[in-house]
Formats: sequence, structure tokens, C-alpha cells
Amino acid sequence: MEDTENSLLSAINSPQDLKKLKEEDLPRLCEEIRAYLIEHLSENPGHFASSMGAVDLIVALHYVFDTPYDRLVWDVGHQAYAHKILTGRKEEFKNHRTLGGISGFPNPLESDADTFMAGHAGNSISAGLGMAIADKLTPGNENRKTVAVIGDASISGGLAFEGLNNASNHPNDLLIILNDNDMSIGNNVGGLHGYLSDLTTSAGYNKLRNKMAIYLKKRGLLTENRRRAIIRFSNSVKSLVSKKQNIFEGLNIRYFGPIDGHDVVKLVKVLRDIKDMHGPRLLHLYTIKGKGYKPAEKDPTIWHAPGRFDPDTGERIIKTEKEKTPLWQEVFGQTLVELAKKDKRVVGITAAMPTGTSLNFLFEKLPERAFDVGISEGHAVTFAGGMAAAGKRPFVAIYSSFLQRAYDNIVHDVAIEGLPVTFCIDRAGLVGEDGVTHHGFFDLPYLSCIPGLSIAAPSDAETLRNLMFSSLEMNSPLAIRYPRGKTNKYPKEAPMKKLIPGKSRLIREGKDSKIAILALGAVVNNAIEAASELAGNGIETDVYDMIWMKPLDEDLIVDLARKHQYIITIEDGVLRGGFGSAVNDLIQREERNPKIVNLGIPDEWIMHGKVSELQHKCGYDKEGIVKSVREIVGKTDA
Amino acid sequence: MEDTENSLLSAINSPQDLKKLKEEDLPRLCEEIRAYLIEHLSENPGHFASSMGAVDLIVALHYVFDTPYDRLVWDVGHQAYAHKILTGRKEEFKNHRTLGGISGFPNPLESDADTFMAGHAGNSISAGLGMAIADKLTPGNENRKTVAVIGDASISGGLAFEGLNNASNHPNDLLIILNDNDMSIGNNVGGLHGYLSDLTTSAGYNKLRNKMAIYLKKRGLLTENRRRAIIRFSNSVKSLVSKKQNIFEGLNIRYFGPIDGHDVVKLVKVLRDIKDMHGPRLLHLYTIKGKGYKPAEKDPTIWHAPGRFDPDTGERIIKTEKEKTPLWQEVFGQTLVELAKKDKRVVGITAAMPTGTSLNFLFEKLPERAFDVGISEGHAVTFAGGMAAAGKRPFVAIYSSFLQRAYDNIVHDVAIEGLPVTFCIDRAGLVGEDGVTHHGFFDLPYLSCIPGLSIAAPSDAETLRNLMFSSLEMNSPLAIRYPRGKTNKYPKEAPMKKLIPGKSRLIREGKDSKIAILALGAVVNNAIEAASELAGNGIETDVYDMIWMKPLDEDLIVDLARKHQYIITIEDGVLRGGFGSAVNDLIQREERNPKIVNLGIPDEWIMHGKVSELQHKCGYDKEGIVKSVREIVGKTDA
Repeated sequence: MEDTENSLLSAINSPQDLKKLKEEDLPRLCEEIRAYLIEHLSENPGHFASSMGAVDLIVALHYVFDTPYDRLVWDVGHQAYAHKILTGRKEEFKNHRTLGGISGFPNPLESDADTFMAGHAGNSISAGLGMAIADKLTPGNENRKTVAVIGDASISGGLAFEGLNNASNHPNDLLIILNDNDMSIGNNVGGLHGYLSDLTTSAGYNKLRNKMAIYLKKRGLLTENRRRAIIRFSNSVKSLVSKKQNIFEGLNIRYFGPIDGHDVVKLVKVLRDIKDMHGPRLLHLYTIKGKGYKPAEKDPTIWHAPGRFDPDTGERIIKTEKEKTPLWQEVFGQTLVELAKKDKRVVGITAAMPTGTSLNFLFEKLPERAFDVGISEGHAVTFAGGMAAAGKRPFVAIYSSFLQRAYDNIVHDVAIEGLPVTFCIDRAGLVGEDGVTHHGFFDLPYLSCIPGLSIAAPSDAETLRNLMFSSLEMNSPLAIRYPRGKTNKYPKEAPMKKLIPGKSRLIREGKDSKIAILALGAVVNNAIEAASELAGNGIETDVYDMIWMKPLDEDLIVDLARKHQYIITIEDGVLRGGFGSAVNDLIQREERNPKIVNLGIPDEWIMHGKVSELQHKCGYDKEGIVKSVREIVGKTDA
Repeated sequence: MEDTENSLLSAINSPQDLKKLKEEDLPRLCEEIRAYLIEHLSENPGHFASSMGAVDLIVALHYVFDTPYDRLVWDVGHQAYAHKILTGRKEEFKNHRTLGGISGFPNPLESDADTFMAGHAGNSISAGLGMAIADKLTPGNENRKTVAVIGDASISGGLAFEGLNNASNHPNDLLIILNDNDMSIGNNVGGLHGYLSDLTTSAGYNKLRNKMAIYLKKRGLLTENRRRAIIRFSNSVKSLVSKKQNIFEGLNIRYFGPIDGHDVVKLVKVLRDIKDMHGPRLLHLYTIKGKGYKPAEKDPTIWHAPGRFDPDTGERIIKTEKEKTPLWQEVFGQTLVELAKKDKRVVGITAAMPTGTSLNFLFEKLPERAFDVGISEGHAVTFAGGMAAAGKRPFVAIYSSFLQRAYDNIVHDVAIEGLPVTFCIDRAGLVGEDGVTHHGFFDLPYLSCIPGLSIAAPSDAETLRNLMFSSLEMNSPLAIRYPRGKTNKYPKEAPMKKLIPGKSRLIREGKDSKIAILALGAVVNNAIEAASELAGNGIETDVYDMIWMKPLDEDLIVDLARKHQYIITIEDGVLRGGFGSAVNDLIQREERNPKIVNLGIPDEWIMHGKVSELQHKCGYDKEGIVKSVREIVGKTDA
């Protein structure tokens, strides 16, 4: 697809190369980058629609700003593929998101051009503000530029609001770019629509304004309070003229736009106009998700992360199975509908992930009892607490790593009161290609220290269903964690049964075994495979599906500590403070101590790759378990 | 002070009693409540200024609404003392915040009138919205009212914004009351000032509006989208009239006010006017902190929580010492100034707690390098990450329990990148009278599972200084935790020295001791006292000041595990996943296992009381340690 002879892109390996192009060549470059994205993302899949929508903005930013000296701070970083391509990672991009390859998100550990981690939405304004204010305090850096890009979904999150609300408190020249790709902001904030970008970005208007400011400053007349008052005054003048005012200007941030985010030449012009202005500013762009690829423009939700596809026809390559093996999330989604139909108290809540968590099943069947609060995990949990306090039974479906944003809400707004909220924690454990920012590393430690909150992890679809059912019988909060990916087929609408908190089950019993394998969650299946292989080599083990991390099956563990020589714990989470650590705490109190090995994620950051590759690296896939057991019993050659 | 004969308050033990009063008696009741607050808070101290400011609002709410059936949701709950007094806890209030007494914050575990936990600011809108929407889904509850009160400081937090942003997404009649006691909102949000409350709350205007809505609804013409469009339209009409618009109306929340929050009769009238309206609404009140007590009105910051005072003169009763023993926070504040003077990279950040953390010392000396971001802990941390990425060395001072709001920011915006941010975690461990929502229970577990983040806890002022100094020599994040209260006197401006991460120190060596006491943080001092008492009884112990929770002093612990029979760990935090648990994990891997006892906070919610009382309850004060050691060595009668 890439015609090296006539290609502009082939000659570009850095922002310096880009700057050699003429302005009128930029639209062609954008087309080439889009073709490059289509070619490679159709083979090695990633986040498609938002990446296509951000191409023109990325080209314009690198063209106008002195990157990487000037800093671009991305948000919802999976839109920044073109940025990776333009900053020396064009070849590496072909293998992005694979083991050892570059990340799917901006990552400062990977490139100087990536100024900040951008896996979780909403942090770019706060981080960019930190940089912009730091520069003002650093001699020689006063004119270094920082640009924070934020999406219209992210800006509704609390962190982005906190950043905006603080943007004008200290001197800084932060430029915020609002990449608005579904116009939801425009509808929500009444005053944004009518602004004329040409008026507010016109050099004349702003030159006059700056001259005034410099004049006043020189004479010591422009104190910080005064500067803000002037901004307010100037905004209120505009309000009088336009009969409107918007949230950004209410927060003392100058607003420009909205303009067409796909007109790269215009973008370059506007960015040049506002580049050297002082004070926090926001430029509002309208863009189209999937821009430049018709099928994606038409259905950007499906094309958010479409998997492999045929670039010519736009047909997605989906493996067809006779009877599809369900995903964990689908079991959740389907079971929730069943429970909600039977129990009017049941409601479902998610934070901008109805498809990702399969809460969309409830939206289809019982929309009035399904809630998507947007990228607002903290609110989702406190809102659930409020509903529970009013007699409802909320199921809150959030990914493990995103639930970190709601930690205080879990503690303060649910657990202290003991409110019956069920947390359905999706993407718990290693998630694979999305990598370090998305792994569900920490939920077991950060939840298990909270009094009164029960924690469970199913090893199969039936147990997930039973746990969800059981939560309705409990009168206290319960967290159920399960991983990304597939589980087993199961009969839908089958009766569910109540599980006893803290009660594990013996899955496989070895003959005269001295070794007990205690596994939590889907990794029970790794343990079963390992036990089977070990048995073939004459090593007998007992395998327990623990189901509950809290309460622990203390009776079982104490009994095993007395009768067995070796205990292996396995979990899909960090070891420090996790399930194995809880088993250690318990056994430490007992008289007879067996030898214990804890398998799980070690105390280091795990990057991206296939889940199987990463579990292997961490040593708790089948091979890792087999190896550990052999080592502990001193039969490494068996 | 309380004249039972003529007192209105003496006859009121419930909202029902209050409703028997005539409207014109309400001002007198408010005065009596204020007198009651002054009388008892001068003796048994608590949060004074904000409680005085909220009296009229609380009286009006209970007078107009059918509480506790109608729900009042408090935020910054320490303003709600009058609410406790009116809902059957007048006598109990005299002993509030003491062991076994009622809490200083609303607490549903204490009274049905307290509908939600309200210790951390900013949750009332989200929780109230959950209740209000739940009621719409509950047959028979459609007309039940929910009122969420929020302060002007809280509303700048991300959670409150997320709540506001979601307020109009589903049918509900939530009434939000903005208790604005320093007018900061008015200044920040340009459009709020000019509204005329009489216009917008006038029955005529709203009757017409409601009639229209009912008419349209009956004819099936008022769908949800249409309803919102009409609200927007009606707001924009008002904008045209008033030439203004505000953030709340931009978020589709009808705005009323501002009105005088101390005119109780007017408040009753306005609340009656808007009580039965439909849809989310916000009533904006101006109140004065400390209202009704001149000294507090004059200096509300000092009178936020003034301690004991003489009610007649307004003189605060402060113990005078020849040379004051410094608070932990003061050592932090003073040392930060010293470091900042020497190292230009140093900046200090807090989230609305400049006085509480003593960051005000830096504000006084180097204001351009001190940042108070308001109640926005998440932003504080990500902002610090941005500053660190731009070469600064931020010290972030936040209370342990409030830092829970920034958990994802610590993980995603600091730790993954390994940015050199120093977290100075104040109020770590049991905090005493503020109770369950304010104890720093969890920071050790929730931080120690994060790779690459070091954690330390000093036992004395010098070590805190040395740790802060050492953090500048590290190129990675460090968390330093220290408790509320006093530490030891120390020479200011004394040279500081670099500590080696993971290196503990032997504090006391027992002769031929078989018992090692490993203590972390200020509780080292409990251990020293205990060791001394035990030695007097013939039980020799070694006491180690561990200083570091992460990295652990593995060499020492492994060595002790081989040579000692007993190991006691002591920490001022929850046991599950904490310091003792990390010691267990390590020793579990070793061949020889000594007997271990972990002392710390058990897996249950600890309420309020003096720190000494609570540590005693948890068993890690001097007596508790002595008792545990005696038990473990079988010398309980020694």
C-alpha cells in the first residue's frame, strides 16, 4: 500500500522531518498516515476509530510546536498512534501491543516524545498543568510550551474538572485541546456552540489584549488577582456581545473554537495564532471518530477496537464458532438480566463501559434500571451507595484498574456503612495487550484490607452466576473479580444456588498427596492442568478452588497446614498483600508450618503481550506451576 | 445557660416536635441551638464555625421536610451538629466524639436520620442522586424527597462535579443545597452572582412552567430528551433576560438563589416553594462561618476546630508550654521550608489542608512554590506527577484517609513512570476523635502493593527530617507516613543525613534476648516503653526501629528468623496486607520459622475516641505489647 517513491511519510522519522514539508502537503501526509494505520491495524489490531480521528491534530501539533522540547500530553492515549509514527516509531508500530514491542499507549519509559503515561482517561490537564507551572518556575524554560489534549468523554470525569478548576490559579501558558468527537460537550454545555472561532482567535484581538497586559505588568499594575479580574471582565464583555458564556470561561480559561479538527491547514493556522499567547487556553475541535475510513465513520463504537479486518472491504475478521464460548463479561451481563427480571431491587451501573462490561444487555432489556455515568468511577460507586441506602441492590461493573479511581468511594461510601453493593470487577489480573496501565494488578490487596467487604473470584461461569445470585442474599458489600477473555459454556437461565461465604471446594484429590494447591479465580484452571501433568509424573497434588479471598476458608487452610507438607497458592494479581499473603498471615499463626510457595504477579511492572505470555513470565501458567511444584518437592528432573 | 422554663429547644427531641413551633418562633430556636453549641463545644471541643453557620438551614430543612422519611444527605458532615441535636441526640451530643459517645459526623450506623456517611467532602450529590433515582424506581416512594447539602469548598472536588454532571441523566427530584460560606463559588463562576432569587423561585413563574410540563406529559409530548431540551430552552431564555448563565444550568440543573442562609423564615418559604418541584434543582445560600459568635465570625479558620474555649470571652484555652513540643506536621512544614531554600526544585502541594498539614509554613516563606489545589486530591497527585516530569521535586502533603481519593493517580501518574514525588502522609494510623472516616487505616496495604514506590515511617522528628532529605537523593517515588499529634523536640536547621532505603536500626538490645520487636513509625515509642517494663519483669527483648516498610530490611529479618524464637511486629495501621503481613511473607519463604505475633489494627471498623484509648483497644499501646509478649513466652503471670 505504501508507495515509497512518492510517499511523504516514508521520509519522515521525526518531527524535524515533518517540519520540512510545505503546509499544502500536510493533507496528503494525513492521508498517508491514515492508509498506514489501516494497513497495519487491519493486521495487528488496536484502537482504530479514535486514532483515525486524531491524525490531523497530531500532524498539526508536531508541525507547529517544537516537539519534544515542547510537550504534548495525551489523554485517552490510544488515539495517539499517529504521534508514535511521527516520533521515530513508524517501524516499531507494526508490532505494537505485542510482547517486547512498543505499547499501545503513550509511555515515557518508551520515548521522550511521550511526556506522560496516558492509559487512564482524564489526567492530561492536571499533568500538563504541572509541567506548565513547573516551567514558569524554571529559569530558561519560561517559554517552553505544554499542550494537553483531552477528549470529550474524559472531560466529564472528576479529575479533568479538578484540573480545569485549578488551571488559572498559578501563572502558566497551558494550551488545552478539547478533541470533541461526538459533540456531547456541545449539547451539555449550552453556551459553547455559538462562539465564532475567527473572532476569538484573530491575531488583532489578542495582540491588543497582550499589549495591554504587558503594559500593566511592566508598571506593576497587573497582580495575579487583577489579571484574573481582567480575564473575567474580558469574558463578560464577550458574553455581552455573544449573549453566551461557557463553563471554561467561567473557570477563567480562555476558550477558542469550535473548529473543524480535520482541516489540517486551518488547524496549523489557528495553533500558530494561539501558540504564544499567555495564560491557560482551551481550543475546542470537532472531529469524527474513524475519519477517513467509511465503515468506521458509520459505526465508531464497533470500530473503537475492531480486531483484524479486511482493509478493502471493511469486513471484520471474526472467528466463527458453532456455539460461541462466552466471555466472562457476557456471563455477568446475561446473569444480571436474569436477576433483574426476578428481583426488582436489582440495578446495574457502569462508568462508560456498557459494551466492555456487557452491561449493555441490561440496557437492552431493562433500560430504566441500567446506568452509565460516563468516565466517573468515583461517582458510580457513591451513586451505588446511595441507591443501596434507598433499598436497591446495585451491581457496579468496572474494570479492576479503573476501579482504583473509586477507592475512597468504596471505603467511605459503601464499606463503612456495610451497604449491599456488588462490585463486578472485570479485567481483573493480567489483561494482555493493553498492558501496564490496564492490568488489574491490585484489587485483591487494596480491597482485602477493608473490613466487612467480602471478595470472591469464580473459576467458571456457573460460579460467577452463583456468586451474583448469592450477593442478593448477603446484606453487605461483595466484590467479585474475573478476568478478561473467555470462560466456559453454561446453560443460560439455569437455576442458581447460594454459595456460603468462605467455603472453598476440592476440585481434584491426589492419592496420599502431601501437596495442596490453593488457587483463586480463573487460574484454578491452570492448576488443574498442572496437577494433571504432575500426576503423570508421579507427583500427586490436591487442588482447591478457593472461590473466596475474604472470608478465607480458614478451617480448610488450618487443617491443610497441619496435614500437608507443601502449600502452593496461585492468584492472578500481585503477591504483596494478595491472596497468598492472606494465607501466609493465617498459617503464621499456626503451630505447624508447611512449606509455602506463593505464585502470582511479582513486585514489578508487567508490560503488554498476550495473557498467556505474561502469565508464563510471571510463573503461574501451567508450566510455571508444574515447575514450582517440582522445585519445592525436589523433583526437578521428574 | 439553658433556661428550661422558657426554652423552645428543651421541648424538642425530634423533627415532629420542631414542626409544632410557629414559623415566627424559629429564629429564637436557632439562637437557642447556637447557645447550646457554644455551651457544649466550649467544654467538649469539635467543629465550631461551620456548625454555627448551618443552624438556620438545618432548622428550616427539618421544619419543611418530612424527615427522616424525606432524606437529608450531609456533606462535610461536621457542620451537621444542629441536625444531631434536633434528631434525638441532644443529650448524647454533650459527649460527642468521645469513646462510646456519638460521632462528630453523620453516621447511618448511629441514627436513621443520618442517611449517609459524611466524613469526606464531596459525596452528598452522588449519594443523594442514588437515593432520589432509586425512589423513582420504587412504587410508593415516587414523592419521597431527597435533599443533598454541599459546601462551596466541596463542590470544587471532582466527585461533586461528577455528581452534578450526572444529575439530569435520569428522572429524579433531587434538591441540592449549596451552602456557600466564603463566597468562593461566587467569584469563580462568573455567572452566579446576578440571579434574583425572587424571580426564579416565584410561585407564579414555576407554576406556569409545571403546568406546561404536565400538559405536555399527559399528551405524551414530553419525552426525556424533550424535557431536557425544554430545560435548556428555558435556561437560555433566562440567559437572554439576565445576560448570564451559570455552570449548574449548563449541566441542566435548575438554579435558585442566592439567598441569605441565616434568614430562617425566608428559608422556610423558599424551601416550601421549591420542595415539590420536579427535576434536579440547586438552591444557593450564602452563610457566614461562625454565625452568631463574633470571635468565630471574625476568624473562621482558627475557629474551624478551636478546641476548648471560654464562651463568654471567646478566649481559646491553650495549654502553654515553656518550649512547645512540635507536632509531626510542624516538623514536615519546617523541614520543607529548609529543603526548599536549599534546593530550587522543591515544591509543596496540598489539597485544601495548608494549616492541617503545616504547608502554610512554605506558603509564608516561598509562596510561589506552594500549591493548594482545594479539595482535589486526585488532581494534587497528578499535578505533582506533571511537575516531577518537568524536573521539580514535589512534596505532596495529604492526610492518609483523604489520599484514598488519589489512589489511581499514585499508581498511574506517579509510580508506573517512577517519578520522584514524595508523599508526606499526615494523620496516618488512628487519628482519635474524628473517628472511622478519618483514621489512616489503609495506606500501608494500598501503597505497598505498588511496584517501585518506597514507604517509610519515622519514629522521631529527626528521622522524618532525614527521610525528607533522603527523598531528594532518590530518583523514584517515596511515601513517608506519620501520625496526628506530637513528636519530640529537635534542633531546627540542623544538618540532615541520607538514610539508606531498607535499613532499620536497633534501638534497644536485650541481654541474650530471644524476642525481637520490629516496630514501624511512631509506635516504636510504645515498643520502647514496653521493652523497658518487660525488662523490669525479667523478659529481655530487642527493639528495632524499622523505618522502612518498603524495601523491608530483609537481611535483618532473615537473620532474626534464624536466631530468634519470637518476633513481634507493631504498626499503626490495619494488619491485613500491612507491615506485619510483609514480614510474614518474607519469613514464610525461610526454612526456620520463629513464632510471630502481628500487632496493629484488626479487621474491623474502629470508631472515635482518644488515640491512646483506641490504640489500647487494638492492643498496640505499651500495655498491649507487654501483654502480647508475656502471652507468647508463656509468662502471663510475670
